[in-house]
Amino acid sequence: MAQHSIVELICRKRDGAELSPDELAWVIKSFTSGEIEKYQMSSLLMAIVFRGMTDGELGAWTEAMLHSGEVVDLSDVALPKIDKHSTGGVGDKVSIPLAPIVAACGVAVPMMSGRGLGHTGGTLDKLESIPGFFTNIPPEDFAKRLLEHQLVLAGQTETLVPADKAIYALRDASGTVPSIPLIASSIMSKKLAEDLDGLVLDVKVGSGAFMKTVDEATRLAETMAAIGRSHGTATVAHLTAMDQPLGTRIGNTLEIEESIEILRGGGPSDMIEITRTLAVEMLLLAGVARDADAAISRVRHVVNTGQALDKFRDVVAAQGGDPAIVDGTRHLAAAPHKHTLHARSDGYVSRCDALSIGMAVVRLGGGRVKANDVIDPTVGVVLAAKVGDAVTGGDELATIHYSTAEALASALPLLERAWSISPDPIEVPPLLISRIGR
Amino acid sequence: MAQHSIVELICRKRDGAELSPDELAWVIKSFTSGEIEKYQMSSLLMAIVFRGMTDGELGAWTEAMLHSGEVVDLSDVALPKIDKHSTGGVGDKVSIPLAPIVAACGVAVPMMSGRGLGHTGGTLDKLESIPGFFTNIPPEDFAKRLLEHQLVLAGQTETLVPADKAIYALRDASGTVPSIPLIASSIMSKKLAEDLDGLVLDVKVGSGAFMKTVDEATRLAETMAAIGRSHGTATVAHLTAMDQPLGTRIGNTLEIEESIEILRGGGPSDMIEITRTLAVEMLLLAGVARDADAAISRVRHVVNTGQALDKFRDVVAAQGGDPAIVDGTRHLAAAPHKHTLHARSDGYVSRCDALSIGMAVVRLGGGRVKANDVIDPTVGVVLAAKVGDAVTGGDELATIHYSTAEALASALPLLERAWSISPDPIEVPPLLISRIGR
Repeated sequence: MAQHSIVELICRKRDGAELSPDELAWVIKSFTSGEIEKYQMSSLLMAIVFRGMTDGELGAWTEAMLHSGEVVDLSDVALPKIDKHSTGGVGDKVSIPLAPIVAACGVAVPMMSGRGLGHTGGTLDKLESIPGFFTNIPPEDFAKRLLEHQLVLAGQTETLVPADKAIYALRDASGTVPSIPLIASSIMSKKLAEDLDGLVLDVKVGSGAFMKTVDEATRLAETMAAIGRSHGTATVAHLTAMDQPLGTRIGNTLEIEESIEILRGGGPSDMIEITRTLAVEMLLLAGVARDADAAISRVRHVVNTGQALDKFRDVVAAQGGDPAIVDGTRHLAAAPHKHTLHARSDGYVSRCDALSIGMAVVRLGGGRVKANDVIDPTVGVVLAAKVGDAVTGGDELATIHYSTAEALASALPLLERAWSISPDPIEVPPLLISRIGR
Repeated sequence: MAQHSIVELICRKRDGAELSPDELAWVIKSFTSGEIEKYQMSSLLMAIVFRGMTDGELGAWTEAMLHSGEVVDLSDVALPKIDKHSTGGVGDKVSIPLAPIVAACGVAVPMMSGRGLGHTGGTLDKLESIPGFFTNIPPEDFAKRLLEHQLVLAGQTETLVPADKAIYALRDASGTVPSIPLIASSIMSKKLAEDLDGLVLDVKVGSGAFMKTVDEATRLAETMAAIGRSHGTATVAHLTAMDQPLGTRIGNTLEIEESIEILRGGGPSDMIEITRTLAVEMLLLAGVARDADAAISRVRHVVNTGQALDKFRDVVAAQGGDPAIVDGTRHLAAAPHKHTLHARSDGYVSRCDALSIGMAVVRLGGGRVKANDVIDPTVGVVLAAKVGDAVTGGDELATIHYSTAEALASALPLLERAWSISPDPIEVPPLLISRIGR
């Protein structure tokens, strides 16, 4: 790798030139090593916000990030290795039932998840509300656990893609977060470091998502698919609606309960629909089902026979958690208090705002404003009325699970404004918006 | 001043919103105090490179910079206080004869200059090639010296506009230099901190200037004039050509010699033209001449009677320099060696490239690549043929004054490519391009 001048590279990017793979690899390496100053990287990142990145730049940048630290080696695992990533939403606990379902179908799922920040929850936080459950699994244990259980539910380790951690922290503090190429490369570098054969992306669109428009979400999905393609990893993306929360339970323990319902063959219809759709994509990418119909049958089979729930119980036990939680012979800790929110008029729910409800759960103590905030796993909101539902004044809209009166007082104003009720019937917009990929 | 969130301000600027005067003042104050990180300021600066600044933003930003440190107080000086600033070029020693001419006409000239960097020379470096001459004059001595001599030839002190020093260093290292509003506010904050009644700007355009096109230079001049207006300081700008060097002598002592020639009523015609034009503007801004004709007569008078030269001698002596240099009874140190560059064909000089010649002088040791490089004041280039001149093969194009064979070898290739000779006569483009301001 040649030596470059960071100021010259910033100026060229600023002026709209394309940087070479060697130059971009040098930037990532030199920033990770501390040779490039933060104030140089942040101004380069702002230039990227304005100028974007070509497919060539994006591929080189992501590869360099992905190789900035340790990479998981799953070459000993003969099964096809498929993971799923969601761009984050409210009530989005899909990974938790999805991973055991797909693993039960004979696919290896080396799933690495993140923590919640802002109004979106994080799979790791939800899993850790199961007593004893640990997610800090070193990369060298990955293959062994995957061979034994076909499933690992892990957090990002410190040694994996350190460039992304450093760049993300800098973007957060320098106003350079909203850039499709930077978001795409951040997600894809971490996922591709898992040594996958295929990846399914759930790109959320709407008030409770980071992408507010279908246009933006489509660009992000296409950009991530292009990175997957350039790395040689089959990648399929679904755009799904996130204007209202997914499912009926939002909050960490509440979402584990709903996930177990799904694994038992129950649960809310939107959760069932997304979980099944993504499971089918994962089976098709893995090549373990010859077509979508066969994949759907296989998914139904592992749920109906209890194999998916067994898989989850196995992994909970293998990662230190209490399997009695999965069996329902023991319950997760609950919040000490409940408060019911009622409809103020008759009509049809026209809006059940994901962002307001997500922020309300943060105010209840169930999410984080800063990365090192401690969360209360028990609090949250259980929805009784979602978009399209007919309600009569006084009907329950939601039950709030809370720990302190102060937290409830802080969350209530957000929740009281989260629902709109229309006198006319409402057509529920589709949950699955579009599909991008091969 | 309210407390603000720097990340929020960066995001708003990035997205094209206008920041308020209070917000911009807070940014400058908090960056100067270290509360805002460099990596936040550099990403804000890059957003400004892309988004520009409104007149309102620019005024507030410049005022905040100007008040970031000490400000010169010239309220005791009853004479009108007028300064001139050039955006920098090659062979541009105009300030040195101009300031004493204007001071001799009854105007107070509190001139603060900078050092050379890159291919452009700096007035301070040129003045310091006079043995003993000092330019580090504390702001509190300004008024006294100005009352006594009507002229101060000073450098920027550390306490004046510290925000500009910090921001300029960051811009230089983060690829955020070429932004018209940032350049304009940097220049104007320093000039307006001199407590002026009027300011004349010489905005250079062409190969040897920072602004390469008339369009860019016009935008810069208009932006600086708008800042002057919003501060209440009458500001006039001239756009002048900088495709070839100004005058015939380039290099520190060489330029002092040419400056003294001008003060004696001699010197190259382009130097005479610019010096006279800017002097007339300064006299008109000061209100000491009723019109341009009267101003020209006054300028001619102080040169022809030796009053301008006397003024320069006074100030040289007052600032520790040897007045015998001004009288010509003692000469400045000369470079040990000379090398003559000859024309290779007959014809007319169509190009005498300012940038190449400026860079050649840097390679001879007469300029700086880094801010703390030590310069050799004796070296430089004396031009014998400029654009439009008829030459015969073998005629002298220039004499190179050099100290070491290595420096000459490094500078020669640049100089050999600096001239073009055309078989057809060349029309010399105008030196004065346009005038902006009241």
